[in-house]
Amino acid sequence: MIDVAEALTRVLHAARPLPAVPVAAAQALGLILAEEIRSDADVPPYDKAAMDGYAVRVADLRSGSAELRLLEEITAGAVPSCPVESGTATRVMTGAPIPDGADAIVPQEATELTHRGGEVQICVRSERVRAGQHIIRRSTLLRRGETVFSPGRVLTPIDVGVLAEIGRATVSAQPRPRAAVLATGNELVPAEQSPGAGQIRNSNGPMLCALVADAGAEVADLGIAQDDAAELSQRVRQGLAADILLLSGGVSAGVLDLVPPVLRNLGIEEVFHKVRLKPGKPVWFGVRRESQRSTLVFGLPGNPASTLVCFELFVRPALNRLLGRAEVSPPQVEGCLLREYSQPGDRPTYFPARLRQEQGTVRVELLEWRGSADLRTLAWADGLACFPAGRERFQPGDKVTVILHQSSTRPVAGRADAADDFSDRAGRTGNPACVDHGWAAPGRT
Amino acid sequence: MIDVAEALTRVLHAARPLPAVPVAAAQALGLILAEEIRSDADVPPYDKAAMDGYAVRVADLRSGSAELRLLEEITAGAVPSCPVESGTATRVMTGAPIPDGADAIVPQEATELTHRGGEVQICVRSERVRAGQHIIRRSTLLRRGETVFSPGRVLTPIDVGVLAEIGRATVSAQPRPRAAVLATGNELVPAEQSPGAGQIRNSNGPMLCALVADAGAEVADLGIAQDDAAELSQRVRQGLAADILLLSGGVSAGVLDLVPPVLRNLGIEEVFHKVRLKPGKPVWFGVRRESQRSTLVFGLPGNPASTLVCFELFVRPALNRLLGRAEVSPPQVEGCLLREYSQPGDRPTYFPARLRQEQGTVRVELLEWRGSADLRTLAWADGLACFPAGRERFQPGDKVTVILHQSSTRPVAGRADAADDFSDRAGRTGNPACVDHGWAAPGRT
Repeated sequence: MIDVAEALTRVLHAARPLPAVPVAAAQALGLILAEEIRSDADVPPYDKAAMDGYAVRVADLRSGSAELRLLEEITAGAVPSCPVESGTATRVMTGAPIPDGADAIVPQEATELTHRGGEVQICVRSERVRAGQHIIRRSTLLRRGETVFSPGRVLTPIDVGVLAEIGRATVSAQPRPRAAVLATGNELVPAEQSPGAGQIRNSNGPMLCALVADAGAEVADLGIAQDDAAELSQRVRQGLAADILLLSGGVSAGVLDLVPPVLRNLGIEEVFHKVRLKPGKPVWFGVRRESQRSTLVFGLPGNPASTLVCFELFVRPALNRLLGRAEVSPPQVEGCLLREYSQPGDRPTYFPARLRQEQGTVRVELLEWRGSADLRTLAWADGLACFPAGRERFQPGDKVTVILHQSSTRPVAGRADAADDFSDRAGRTGNPACVDHGWAAPGRT
Repeated sequence: MIDVAEALTRVLHAARPLPAVPVAAAQALGLILAEEIRSDADVPPYDKAAMDGYAVRVADLRSGSAELRLLEEITAGAVPSCPVESGTATRVMTGAPIPDGADAIVPQEATELTHRGGEVQICVRSERVRAGQHIIRRSTLLRRGETVFSPGRVLTPIDVGVLAEIGRATVSAQPRPRAAVLATGNELVPAEQSPGAGQIRNSNGPMLCALVADAGAEVADLGIAQDDAAELSQRVRQGLAADILLLSGGVSAGVLDLVPPVLRNLGIEEVFHKVRLKPGKPVWFGVRRESQRSTLVFGLPGNPASTLVCFELFVRPALNRLLGRAEVSPPQVEGCLLREYSQPGDRPTYFPARLRQEQGTVRVELLEWRGSADLRTLAWADGLACFPAGRERFQPGDKVTVILHQSSTRPVAGRADAADDFSDRAGRTGNPACVDHGWAAPGRT
C-alpha cells in the first residue's frame, strides 16, 4: 500500500493545468491568467482635466490675476473646438480633454464669471498657478504596449476593472475544471426523500458538489447510482465528459464494491487503489486518457469523513493543478495539542480539530469525534490534525500539523504561515464574477 | 460635510438584513442560516456495521473461536430477514443494518468460510471480541430533534453535506442581495469598443460588478448611461428593482453631474452627499423605501480609485449587512510605514499599499501611485493605508491602519487580528455552490 505523499505525487503527475481558453473578463475572476496583458492604448489617451475648472495659459496669470475671455465649455466625452490662446480660457469638466495651448487648470472656486458686452469673461484670482496643475498628461498611467499583467496572475475584481480600461473584454485563462459527482450505493436516497428501512440519505454527493464548486470548478451532480455494474458503467460514461469525476462509495472490499472493476472495464487506467491513511484507506484513483484530453477519476470511500479527508489530500490539489494554481495543497498550520491522543500508529490519522490562538501560540483542540461517519463534528472543525504513523501516543503540548478547511465561506484564520508573504495570491479558491444567476432587472430579459 | 464614521453609521442604519427566504441547500453556500436546524431523524437510523464482516453473538465466542452457521448476507441498503441466534452469524457489509440478536461484528479477516453438508460454516478465530465492536449504534451521531446548526451560521461545503444527511434540501437563509450597476458619463464606451476622441472605456462598471459578485451578491450590469436626465431616470428605475443600486460618475459639481438631482426626483431620499475623505469626497447615498422593501442607492465618484475606496468603506459593509453577516467592515491590519508620507491633512486619505511581514512586524509599503485615476497601481496593492485628517506628515516607522482588499481570489494574508479568533466565520464573502454554469454532462440537458 502506498503512502499519502506517494499518492499525492501520482495524482499531481496525472493532473495537468487545463489548456488556456478565451474567457470573458467578467467570468475570469479567480482564474489564472495565461497570457501577458499589454495596454492597447495610452491611459489616459489624452491630456485630461483632473477637476472642474478653467483651462488657461500660465503665462497669462503671472500677475496673480487676469480677465480671460471664455471660449467654450468642454464636458467629459466632448472635444475642444479651438486652442486656448493668450487672453482666453476654456471651461473643462473633470475627465475632459485639455485644449491645445492650455497648460494648467484653475479650479472653479478661484474664478468669477462676468459678462462684458456680448462676451463672458472669467476673472481669475490665483496666486500660485503651476504649469501642468490639475492636468493628467496623456500616458501618465499606462503607455501603449506596456505590460500590465503577467501570466500566472490570479485575477481579482480590481483586475477586471483594469482589463476593461485597456479594452480586454476577453482574456486567455486557465478555465474552471468541469467536475462530475456521482454517489453510489443501494442504501442511498436523495436528501429530499425519507429513508426507508436500511436506507440513508446521500450526503456525500451534495457535500462534494459544494466542495468542488467552492474550489472553483463547474460541477454536474450525476445523482445516485445503484450498486449495479451496468448502471454504474452508464453513469460513469456520462461523467467522463468532465475533467474530473468523483465517485463516492463502492471502493472497499465488500461484495457490492463494484466501482474499481467497473472503472477498469471502462478503460480507466488505475493509478492506485488503497493508500496508507485513516480514514480513507480504500481510495481509488485512475486516469482516462484520450488523444486531446483526459479525465481524472477518484473513487472516494463512502464514509463522509473518509470522502472529506481524501478530497482535501488528493482532490483539492488536483483541482488546483487543473486551475493552474502555483500552490496546490490546502494551507497548514502547526500547533500544540491541548489533550492527549493515541492511535494504533500503523497509518497516519486525520482527526477533526479546532484552533485557538493563545498568547501567540496556536492551540489544537481535538473534537469529540465519533468516527468516520460523523460528519456533523467535522462541520465544526477548523481542519484536520495529522498524526503521523509509527507513533502511538501524543501528549498535551506536542506539536501537530493541521490541514485547514479551505473555503471562501470562512476566514483563513489559522493561516499563520501565509502572513509571511502577503504577496502570495495563488493559494485561494476562485469565485465566478457576474455569473448569470437567473435574475435580471426589469426591462432586461 | 460629514466624516467617514458618520457616513458609515448612516449607511448601516439604512441597510437591514434581507428577509430570510427558502434557499436550496446546494445554493446556500456562504449564506447566513436564518433558522435553527434540527435533525429529522436518528443518525444512523439503525444499528449499523462499521466494516465488512460477520454479525455474531459475543457469548458464542467466549472460547476465542467458534464455528457458526451462516444465515444470510446483508449489504448496505438491504434489511436482515432473521435474527442472529446462538450458533449462527450473518454476513454484513459496511453500512448494513445489524440483525437483531447480534452484538458485535467480527472482521472478515478473522474468519474462514467452510462448507459442511449443505451449509456454510464460518470459522471465527478472534481472541478479544468486545460487545458492540464495529457497530455504530442508532442515534450515536445525531438524535432526532437535536439541534445541528443555529441561526447566524455561515454555511460551508461540509454543512451542505450535513444538511443533506438530515433531509434538509432547503433551508431558510438570508438571500444574496440583488445588486445593479450603472456607469454614467458621455465619455464612456464599453471595454470591447475603441474609444474615439475624448472617450475612455468604462472600467468602473465591470470592476463594480466583479466586486459585488465576489462579495456574495447577484449582479445585473445595467451598462452605461449618457449624461442625460431622461435616460438616467429610465435606467435608475430599472435599477430600483435591486436591493442595492450602484452608480458611478456624475456626482460632482460639474455641469453634467446629474446623478444627485435625478435620484432625488425619483423619490430616493438623500441620506448624504459628500463625505470628508480623499479620494471619494463626492459620494452620494440615499434610500428608496417602498412598503415591503427598500433599495440602497450609492452614487459613487467616477474616478476608479474613488469608486473603489467608497466601495470598501460604504458599499461592502452595506452588502455584508444585507447578507446578515455579523462582521460588516473589511478586515484591517496595523503596520509600520516604510517611507514618509505627507498630505494636506484636511481630509483622511486612503492610499494603496502593500504589506510585508518582517521579523514579526507588518511593514506598510506605499505604492508609487499616480492619483485617483490610477487603477493599475491599486490592482497591485494589498489594501488601502489610512492617513487620518489633522496631521500632515508621517515618518517611516509610524503606525498606520491598512484596510485589506477582501476577495475570495486572494489569501486574507494580512489578517493578523483574525488569528486571535479562529472560530469567527462571519467575515468572509460568499460563493454560490453548484451554480448552473450552463455546462452539463452528456445525457443531461
